[in-house]
Amino acid sequence: MIIQLVVWPDDRACDRSWLMDQVPGASGIIVMLSDTHTAFSLYSHKAAGPNLRVISTMSVGYEHIDLSAISQRGVKLGYTPDVLTDAVADLSLMLALMVGRNGAETMSLVRNGEWPNSPWSPFGFCGPQLSASPVSPTRTMGFIGFGRIAQATLKRLIPLGVTHCIYYANPSSPPKPSLDAELMTKYGLNSVKRVDLDELAKDSDVVFVLAPGGEQTKHLVNADFLGKMKKTAVLVNTSRGTLVDSEALATALHQGVIWGAGLDVVEGEPQVTADHPLVKEPRCVILPHIGSATLETRLGMATLAAKNLLGGIFEEAMPAELNLKSRT
Amino acid sequence: MIIQLVVWPDDRACDRSWLMDQVPGASGIIVMLSDTHTAFSLYSHKAAGPNLRVISTMSVGYEHIDLSAISQRGVKLGYTPDVLTDAVADLSLMLALMVGRNGAETMSLVRNGEWPNSPWSPFGFCGPQLSASPVSPTRTMGFIGFGRIAQATLKRLIPLGVTHCIYYANPSSPPKPSLDAELMTKYGLNSVKRVDLDELAKDSDVVFVLAPGGEQTKHLVNADFLGKMKKTAVLVNTSRGTLVDSEALATALHQGVIWGAGLDVVEGEPQVTADHPLVKEPRCVILPHIGSATLETRLGMATLAAKNLLGGIFEEAMPAELNLKSRT
Repeated sequence: MIIQLVVWPDDRACDRSWLMDQVPGASGIIVMLSDTHTAFSLYSHKAAGPNLRVISTMSVGYEHIDLSAISQRGVKLGYTPDVLTDAVADLSLMLALMVGRNGAETMSLVRNGEWPNSPWSPFGFCGPQLSASPVSPTRTMGFIGFGRIAQATLKRLIPLGVTHCIYYANPSSPPKPSLDAELMTKYGLNSVKRVDLDELAKDSDVVFVLAPGGEQTKHLVNADFLGKMKKTAVLVNTSRGTLVDSEALATALHQGVIWGAGLDVVEGEPQVTADHPLVKEPRCVILPHIGSATLETRLGMATLAAKNLLGGIFEEAMPAELNLKSRT
Repeated sequence: MIIQLVVWPDDRACDRSWLMDQVPGASGIIVMLSDTHTAFSLYSHKAAGPNLRVISTMSVGYEHIDLSAISQRGVKLGYTPDVLTDAVADLSLMLALMVGRNGAETMSLVRNGEWPNSPWSPFGFCGPQLSASPVSPTRTMGFIGFGRIAQATLKRLIPLGVTHCIYYANPSSPPKPSLDAELMTKYGLNSVKRVDLDELAKDSDVVFVLAPGGEQTKHLVNADFLGKMKKTAVLVNTSRGTLVDSEALATALHQGVIWGAGLDVVEGEPQVTADHPLVKEPRCVILPHIGSATLETRLGMATLAAKNLLGGIFEEAMPAELNLKSRT
């Protein structure tokens, strides 16, 4: 058996015309989250043709794939869950730290050569401390979505003296009191509790947004939610931009309703220009969706995507196949 | 008993002329790390006079105080250890994460409006992952200096899957094999080991510089040390700028000898201008000495400094008095 491998040579999403030339007759295709048009053209133009057995996306999300369309055609879908959990949890922790420590403002100050003219003062550059302290002995971490990445983030926060964990989960999912109790004991927390959005907003020192994107979760963090948060609270979004209402957040930051925000994702990305209201806020740290961007994790994702592809082509087990029947 | 309190009104180091007018006859003085001239002028001009009983510095370091001079005059010295341990450990962790994740480059890219023109690519913005991963299952953290802040930093790295801890300590300090064994067991590490600088440079994935400043530790991290480090290694300095040879580090970064560096302190600070060779390196994250800069920690330091002052004035116990006899 010979596999003919066709690889787009450049380090960016492939051109549509190149794809349309190459894809007819393909048995399998590896796509990226950035290839929105790839999945679309595959189905709508039937460009690949009846040989197509598998689409393998190098991502944990699959909102760029038309699930019902490929399910109808009997095409399998591979994705890359789990392998990026640690990389995204690392970044979530990093953003929570950076926002409290005025990372954007202080780093720019040095880059711009303003350090020599920035007098030291007892409370200069000071923000809320993420670690517990005698002044703030309780630290409550709130999570919107409490899956693998959220729990890996919680684990990283334990040595900082976190005392309480609250989370909001999909209302249709059953409560898991035994998991809550298990985490509480394992980490020596005062409480681990599923709450509604109101309580989450009111009680959290940091809110981590770590839920799937899509219509169901759109703008869960809106003006109403932000208005209920503490003035010293920090918002971190490392999941999907659609969960946070950008305009409401920019207004909340501008008016000092919350302390600051750390975003790896922004609604409408990558069309986020220098005049975007969030980019102009000094207490908003924005990164260009690099949640899984480490050498180790991307290598792990690429390897898993390749194994999914081969499994699908040879009709063998795929290490991470999405169950399309339960989703469509 | 009435205390007359004289407070410099501005949010910056006080003017020398103001100080010279106000200080004669003072029983105690609170100084900051930035007030280098304060301690100097106190002694050399004998401006305070024989009433002076105590100097209380709102800092953990005391290299800005002439210890032997004040010791000879019988003046006590208060400082603020411990209270800033967590804040500096938080920042050390944050810098280690930021360097691996290209924090400086990616944040600037978004601020400059370049996100829309930055194509996603499988290995774009990727650096070495701080967390352990199937690709890099062992993670070795190296510490130059292994006191309270270093140990608090180590504790924060445990949930990221750290496996080995090595450290270099002052050669005149006795080995502490039982502490090493205790930490190893407590954190489930494969090893905790005191090593020489050569081994530290060669084996560490991250080197944290957390030792006191001064002549004894000057340029411990020099071209020779950097040359022995791994190509993927990260250097973090959150103690004193003098420990790292800035020129050697800039060269190492420029030539790709190590992956990157995160610095909260730079030799000669705050005279670090935009044309400083380290500021120009894209893989160098520099912050303007904000290690202890959180609202909670600075409030704790200020409170301790005030208590030290009062203890010194009234000849009662000072909560944190430096033993000058053992130091001079």
